[in-house]
This record gives sequence, C-alpha cells and structure tokens, in this order.
Amino acid sequence: MAPADFVHHERVRFGDLDAMRHLNNVVFLRYFESARIAFIRELVPEHDPAGPEREGVGFIFAECHIVYRSPVYFDEEIAVHCSIGEVRRSAFQICFAMRVQGRLAAEGHGWLVGYDYAEQRSARLPEALRERLEAAAPSGAE
Amino acid sequence: MAPADFVHHERVRFGDLDAMRHLNNVVFLRYFESARIAFIRELVPEHDPAGPEREGVGFIFAECHIVYRSPVYFDEEIAVHCSIGEVRRSAFQICFAMRVQGRLAAEGHGWLVGYDYAEQRSARLPEALRERLEAAAPSGAE
Amino acid sequence: MAPADFVHHERVRFGDLDAMRHLNNVVFLRYFESARIAFIRELVPEHDPAGPEREGVGFIFAECHIVYRSPVYFDEEIAVHCSIGEVRRSAFQICFAMRVQGRLAAEGHGWLVGYDYAEQRSARLPEALRERLEAAAPSGAE
Amino acid sequence: MAPADFVHHERVRFGDLDAMRHLNNVVFLRYFESARIAFIRELVPEHDPAGPEREGVGFIFAECHIVYRSPVYFDEEIAVHCSIGEVRRSAFQICFAMRVQGRLAAEGHGWLVGYDYAEQRSARLPEALRERLEAAAPSGAE
Repeated sequence: MAPADFVHHERVRFGDLDAMRHLNNVVFLRYFESARIAFIRELVPEHDPAGPEREGVGFIFAECHIVYRSPVYFDEEIAVHCSIGEVRRSAFQICFAMRVQGRLAAEGHGWLVGYDYAEQRSARLPEALRERLEAAAPSGAE
Repeated sequence: MAPADFVHHERVRFGDLDAMRHLNNVVFLRYFESARIAFIRELVPEHDPAGPEREGVGFIFAECHIVYRSPVYFDEEIAVHCSIGEVRRSAFQICFAMRVQGRLAAEGHGWLVGYDYAEQRSARLPEALRERLEAAAPSGAE
Repeated sequence: MAPADFVHHERVRFGDLDAMRHLNNVVFLRYFESARIAFIRELVPEHDPAGPEREGVGFIFAECHIVYRSPVYFDEEIAVHCSIGEVRRSAFQICFAMRVQGRLAAEGHGWLVGYDYAEQRSARLPEALRERLEAAAPSGAE
Repeated sequence: MAPADFVHHERVRFGDLDAMRHLNNVVFLRYFESARIAFIRELVPEHDPAGPEREGVGFIFAECHIVYRSPVYFDEEIAVHCSIGEVRRSAFQICFAMRVQGRLAAEGHGWLVGYDYAEQRSARLPEALRERLEAAAPSGAE
C-alpha cells in the first residue's frame, strides 16, 4: 500500500553539465530536491512546497549527504529512487539512489526537521504526518 | 516532412522559482537552451552539443530576445515551441513560444552563427546544414 | 549627481561555465539580474527585491535582449555597466554592457514595467520613482 | 606558513534565493564548490579546474556532507572557511564552515579522490600534492 520506492526522473540537460562535460556535482543535489518534493507531495498531497507557511507546521531541509559513484553524461536519463529512512519525533530521513541504465550514479540521504512557521522554530512532526511516514518506511509494514 | 514546429517540454521545479514564487526570468533562457539543443539535434542528428569542436564547423549562440507574457508557477508544464526563422549565409534564427495550458508565457528568439572551431572564428554555415534549416523554415516548403 | 553609470562586478565561477568551458549564455542573464537589482537599490534604497509586494506598486521584468560579443573564461572579472535608458509612463529600460579587461563581452537591455501587487496588474510608475529614473537617465541632466 | 584557514566570500544574490526567500539548500553546495576550488588553487597554483586533464593526475569530487544551521537571506555576506581535514594515500578531505556576521549558517565537508585522466580511473595522490596537503592540515605543523 505504501510507496516503498518512489522514482523521479530527470534527463541531463546541457545546462546541467560543467566544464568537465559531466553532470555537475551540485546538480545532483538539485535533482534530489526535485525528487524529494515530488515524493513528499505523493505522501502528503496537501503539502505546498511553494507556500508551506500556510500549513502551520512544515519541515525544513537540515542535512544532506551525497556519495558520487560514477560520472553522468549529457542527455542520460536518471532515475532518482527515494524512500523514507529513519523517522523520529521531530525529524525524518529520505534516502535516495540515482541510477542511469542500471549503473549507480550516486546515493545519499537528507534529513528534514519539523518546523513551526508561526513560532519560527523547530517542532515535533504532526502526528498524522508521522504516521504516514512510518507507514511508508521499509519497516513500516511490520 | 520538415519539423515545422518542434515542441520541448519542461515541468517547473521548486528550484526554478525565485523569491516571488514565479518561474525566474533567467530560467526561461535555460528552458530555451534545452529546447533549441533538442531541436537542433532533431534537425542535425550528428550534432553533439557537449563536444561540437569535433565537427569542425559548428555554431555559437550570439543573441537572444525574450518577451515575458505571464507568470508561471510551481509544477506547471511548459511547452516550448521552436521553429526556424530567418536563415542567412552564416547565421540562422530559432524562434520560440512557451505555452502553459493554452496561455502564452513567453516568446522570443535566438540567433546562432556559424563558427569554425579550428580557426576560432565565425564561418559560413555548412551547405548541408543550411539546406536542412531552409527546409525546416516555414517558407522552406515553397 | 545622478549615477550616470552604475557598475556591478562578478567573477566567473567554475559553476558558471558550460561544457564548452565558456561562461554559459544563461549566466549572462543571471549577472544582469544581480546587476540591475543592485542598480535599482541604489536609485531606490527603500526597494526590497525579496519582498516587493509590501511596497504596493513595484515593477516586473518584462523583456530582455542580449547580444553576446566575445567568450568569457573561468575566473575572469566582469564589470556589468548599467544605465537607465528610455523612461515611459508605465515602463523603463535598463541598458547594460559587460566588459572584461577592456573587451566587450556582451551588451543589451531589459524593460521593467510598473506593477500593482494589490490589484495584480500593470500600473503607472509612481511619480517619485519616475523622477528619479529620469534624473538618472543620460538625457535627464538637460 | 600553511594556510590553516582559507576564506572565500560570497554575497547572496536574488537568484540564489528560493520560494521561501532563503538561500536555497543547493546553492550552499555551489558556494562550497567555488570556495574549495579557490582554496585548492592557492595550495596548488598550477591547478586548472577548467582543464585538469592536462595535468595527468588530478582529483574528482567524491562525497559531500552538509549540515544546515540557520537560514541565510538576500544580500548577506557569507564567509566560507575551508581547511584540509584527513589526508589519505588516494583521497583528502576539505572541511568548511559558512559564517554570516558571526552566526554559523552551515558546515560540512567534501572528499576528493585522486584521478588519473589518461587511465580514467582513481589513482594515488601525487607525492608533491600530498605533502602540500599535509602541510596545510591542522596536524601538519607537527
């Protein structure tokens, strides 16, 4: 029932290359941003990434880790696989793996922490959100 | 036979928005870059945008003009319509119109000029290329 | 008295290059954006580009034209010279020339049109703004 | 003698903001890219980031980790402090801390691994480079 694995697709644009003619290291983080926003919108359809303060309590991106595994070239199609990792009271982890025609291009994760836009400080995740995240996490089916 | 109208699609990413929560003006030019490269590759399949100097004579982007018609928002799907405009001995024009669900978001054009990578200077367009461009131009069917 | 010529500086970053190892055509427009915002803030110190709707009537970027004159390379220092061009009742023009160590890298202009954020439509430029723009325009000293 | 702490400066541009009117998370990685390239060029003046394959053995960016500490706003000046962390036979770490007027905006590190451009595979760091890195590392003064 839960999206154990969400996949977002990107196609490498000329403007994503750097002087080495590889997908630039920074653009991997941009792809991960687009992928996790699409993933979160599937889990939480009412989430509006371009106006989250209207929701009262949202989450902010607090940490990222990327391991680059192989170079990526112009016009290649990247599948960004996302999954929910650890879920805590006030934070959760999204893990990703970027694959290009079977080879692993990069992998890593990000941490998102609950944030109260009215109070302008970190906050516990809303109960309803945490339940959905736990249901989507690999161990959530137990 | 000729692609009278080539269409490239983009979906507005969170990272394409600016502080006004609109598609940033600079990103329109990025979309046009991606669209015209895809268009040129359809007209000239042997063209390699990430290594054009291997072709001897290529073309460089020399001028652009963009008229912004209406704001574009997160997650909207943009159709970038491209067509060949004027074709000269050493330059040609690519015209574009960006449409979002029927409304016109922007329009404009770019000029590309022939360039000799060995000599490092502008050059006449190769005859074969010019023929293909003229065939693809609206008046090319006459 | 009026800033007949405003200069904004950029230093070409690795991330601004494309696969041709030149300053990418799109980044010229990004540089122009940064330059004109700094220029406008000098002319209109109370302007807040990251929250213009609080000012009631602002302006939006409506058109741009760029002519690329010579390639620009990694770590080069660009001087973006800006000046006010034509000033109309509801729009004004900002002209620019980008120079790198004496050579002209690009030139062009943009049009900004008055915009009423409350009414969400184009509007006449506030009188005080138009006076400042006219004073800053080359012919404003007459 | 060794640059125990290298500092690169960035000023937040309008185009670096996202829809939340904060410095976008991806742009922190861009700033780190610019900073570490400037840092490496100070340590290894003969290094050409836009043509490293001419050097025979260079290094590629293999991993990054960023912890975001506080939001950053339009026009703020960021000091990106860089230092050499761990130095191994075929890889080394660059650590960074981004400070804005005394507050910590982000911190993290990247790993660079030796790369043989002719053989197209990872390689031991050249001896001369490793010596310079070790001299620049905090413990290098022992």
